[in-house]
Amino acid sequence: MSAPRPDLVISSPANARIKAVVALRNRRDRDASGLTRLEGREELELAIAAGVRPRTLFHCPQLMGRGGPGDGLVEQVRSFGAEIIECSRAVFEKASYREGPDGFLAVAPSPGRGLFALDIPTDGLLLVAQGIEKPGNLGAMLRTADAAGVAAVIAADPVTDWGNPNVVRASKGTVFSVPVASATTAETIAWLAARGIALVATTPDTDTRHTDADLRGPVAIAVGTEKYGLDEELFAASTIRVRIPMAGRADSLNAATAAAIVLFEAVRQRSVAPPNFR
Amino acid sequence: MSAPRPDLVISSPANARIKAVVALRNRRDRDASGLTRLEGREELELAIAAGVRPRTLFHCPQLMGRGGPGDGLVEQVRSFGAEIIECSRAVFEKASYREGPDGFLAVAPSPGRGLFALDIPTDGLLLVAQGIEKPGNLGAMLRTADAAGVAAVIAADPVTDWGNPNVVRASKGTVFSVPVASATTAETIAWLAARGIALVATTPDTDTRHTDADLRGPVAIAVGTEKYGLDEELFAASTIRVRIPMAGRADSLNAATAAAIVLFEAVRQRSVAPPNFR
Repeated sequence: MSAPRPDLVISSPANARIKAVVALRNRRDRDASGLTRLEGREELELAIAAGVRPRTLFHCPQLMGRGGPGDGLVEQVRSFGAEIIECSRAVFEKASYREGPDGFLAVAPSPGRGLFALDIPTDGLLLVAQGIEKPGNLGAMLRTADAAGVAAVIAADPVTDWGNPNVVRASKGTVFSVPVASATTAETIAWLAARGIALVATTPDTDTRHTDADLRGPVAIAVGTEKYGLDEELFAASTIRVRIPMAGRADSLNAATAAAIVLFEAVRQRSVAPPNFR
Repeated sequence: MSAPRPDLVISSPANARIKAVVALRNRRDRDASGLTRLEGREELELAIAAGVRPRTLFHCPQLMGRGGPGDGLVEQVRSFGAEIIECSRAVFEKASYREGPDGFLAVAPSPGRGLFALDIPTDGLLLVAQGIEKPGNLGAMLRTADAAGVAAVIAADPVTDWGNPNVVRASKGTVFSVPVASATTAETIAWLAARGIALVATTPDTDTRHTDADLRGPVAIAVGTEKYGLDEELFAASTIRVRIPMAGRADSLNAATAAAIVLFEAVRQRSVAPPNFR
């Protein structure tokens, strides 16, 4: 079997293509290009499984083992029409962000879209995450949202972007399979109201437990940051307010855990064994 | 106001006390001494609030600001009978594990005990975490367990120890407030059986949803790793087996999230507003 033939071979770390892929670590460059990085074989495979079609694949045969199982993945990415770029080890290590890179780094369209592009079923369950800073928290919420079968996750006034490499990584590919959007809080409120989707505030400022509210039908569960919770604008716009009863320290549940508990209570209330649940 | 007077001042990074506190980063040294590190002001304050009494406090006035608000904390720790050791900046930075140390590093008894030391109410809700590797996951589970009001968390065949500095950090002090123990899986099973506590396996290998099982009364919710789940020994010993229904990827819920969902379902079933819940 002959080695896959790259479209381009780069052996200088000063190459402009390498500089461009390094620059995608910065949000400004991701926002300007609409692109993000998929780093490492597992992340690339998860994204492909979720339907992502990379534009470019940087690979390093020295790191991935020429003629090894990696070749099949290179050919698969090529079959999607991506440009295939081979790098020397020194070049790849410059382009890579990780310790112990495995020779795969792809560039793909960033996840996330505008609210207008979301298509929500009439009884949709949504998650609104307001002001979340930590990429790991957003990634964890996406995995939970995937498991709960949500119709969409909306980041309201997000501090990080969906294409942040740490969100992509922490989400284990779900940032590409769960419909996600970003918007201001005001836009989110207006969009939900126009569609008759009830906004459910998760907050300490109510006596209603999450298990005592009706979370069937079209609802958007809103969670804020550990530190500040939901802001006044979103709280005021909510028509259902729920608290998670807590025995210990008041701040023991982080945003992702709170989201998991309320989303799966909604799943419980909705579930007389719907067919898509296994 | 005069500056607090230390019991000892260290200005040499080669000092044996500094070497000893650095060595507590290693599990072997934690196991041998029964001690762990509390790093940074916030972590120290959370541990004190949970009842921890540090044995030793290393502090660095240059980093914490002499005459500043840190002095009160130094005096508080001294009032517990701890030895107070002042370090030069170079020494403290050697002893510290963090970026941007704030001048506080204490040594305290490690959390965790044997099963025999746990005191469980007759209708206790427990969490059993089997084989968890990631300290961040254990820390997250502790915060959730605290919120759910569990009687204890048992680490069965743990890969990490409760005193691991990253567990301590991720737990936000709850590793000291929630009763925790470590044991082998066989010991855990025998201990639960002797007390009539039902072992609830969270597993994909059942058709019973977690919301359809009776989780009132004395139950121990067992969760395994993302990768391997619960082992056969624990699965075979379980008398209740539940699955969390999942719409998306089969591995979308990590151990800490799965624990949160099942624990709070148990809380829901038990809660006709028990007085300790707010």
